[in-house]
Amino acid sequence: MRLEANYRLDLQYDGRPFRGWQRQPNGPTVQEKLEEAISQVFLARCTVHGAGRTDAGVHAAGQVAGVRLPTDMEGPTIARALNANLPPEIRLTSVRRAREDFHARLHATSKLYRYLIVTGAQRSPFAPFYASWVDHPLGLEAMRGSARFLLGRHDFRSFQAAGGSVESTEREIKSLEIKRGGGMISITIRGDGFLRQMVRIIVGTLLEVGRGKRQPEEMAAIIAARDRTGAGPTAPACGLTLVRVDY
Amino acid sequence: MRLEANYRLDLQYDGRPFRGWQRQPNGPTVQEKLEEAISQVFLARCTVHGAGRTDAGVHAAGQVAGVRLPTDMEGPTIARALNANLPPEIRLTSVRRAREDFHARLHATSKLYRYLIVTGAQRSPFAPFYASWVDHPLGLEAMRGSARFLLGRHDFRSFQAAGGSVESTEREIKSLEIKRGGGMISITIRGDGFLRQMVRIIVGTLLEVGRGKRQPEEMAAIIAARDRTGAGPTAPACGLTLVRVDY
Repeated sequence: MRLEANYRLDLQYDGRPFRGWQRQPNGPTVQEKLEEAISQVFLARCTVHGAGRTDAGVHAAGQVAGVRLPTDMEGPTIARALNANLPPEIRLTSVRRAREDFHARLHATSKLYRYLIVTGAQRSPFAPFYASWVDHPLGLEAMRGSARFLLGRHDFRSFQAAGGSVESTEREIKSLEIKRGGGMISITIRGDGFLRQMVRIIVGTLLEVGRGKRQPEEMAAIIAARDRTGAGPTAPACGLTLVRVDY
Repeated sequence: MRLEANYRLDLQYDGRPFRGWQRQPNGPTVQEKLEEAISQVFLARCTVHGAGRTDAGVHAAGQVAGVRLPTDMEGPTIARALNANLPPEIRLTSVRRAREDFHARLHATSKLYRYLIVTGAQRSPFAPFYASWVDHPLGLEAMRGSARFLLGRHDFRSFQAAGGSVESTEREIKSLEIKRGGGMISITIRGDGFLRQMVRIIVGTLLEVGRGKRQPEEMAAIIAARDRTGAGPTAPACGLTLVRVDY
């Protein structure tokens, strides 16, 4: 019998050098780098399933992936071997045996994303690479007032990028917090799932509220319209991090 | 009469893309980028004098420079114009008129450098670019015990890189603090001046003490020997930041 077991991978990555999570013909992706490292260590082709298919330039502090490996080695041993074959922008923080039926994407119950923004007339060279920058002040109370409308279960079609193809555009936003701290503004959003570029379009809309270009109450009509053209622009990828996946 | 005035520039930079502060034939330097920006804005060749000639890869959060400009414009106006012509890795935080005789390097009374280290089995992709990484734990008490010997005025020839050519190798270290915080270890050192790569060689020696390769008391003999070969290796440039210059 061929030795094989199901593993859960927890990983972090700096999204800048990658064209997102998912394998694609042009340019390096995180999935591709993981599968290459696995192929180098185990001399086998394995498919890695990620919980969240992050876009090009989006970071992860707590991405989760699943993979069947032709081994029953201990997780930490596998983590060391794979990390030695991964670029420094990707680090496995944990590898452990998972239940035979574990699937990182299908079994995720919620995901938590964080969008970070530094404000100021100049972007400091010391600003963290995983924060976006705006050159004007933001009204956090207005942003919070607008964010309230997003909570709960809605059809979020207005916040889906062109090219998204899913059966239902209904999703539930379980929490949305906007805070100031550490010289940055954070928008932390947890939901049962997100449409294509949904978090970045929500942030782009909230930023327009924050700078006074829109009223907080407009959010209700934007949601109801179910039309992408009513929402704000897509905020830059560099500020977004997948922080946690819950099961 | 030609309009001309002396200015003090305060600036920050991410040292990674530069071959240090000082103009040189191969590759971009911070001084060169500043002088290019000045030439674009004022259509004049001006020489910028920096307080500290940081090495290739070394960062600055509080570098100070002086320059005579063919203008008497207000500082903030000049800062905006120059920042618009500088790469994003260099930001002027302030430009202001200085006394006619102000010289950034000659008049500096002390400089403060900080060396940052993250420790851990893996370097996190989210670790700040301006910190160095070691994969083993460090004994801070031993490092502090060793650092005591460096305080005060000494001949620091043992901590001067080859190629340093100064009349006297005597310098005064006014303070040296080693702390843990924010997931990092910081070594903060203030002195009236530093020899070529002196801070990095001091850090490299303290790191050997911290991992138990040397006894704290050896530092006294290393100083007394006035011989570079007795000290530890030069710590990587990426962890070092010029934080402040005092006048």
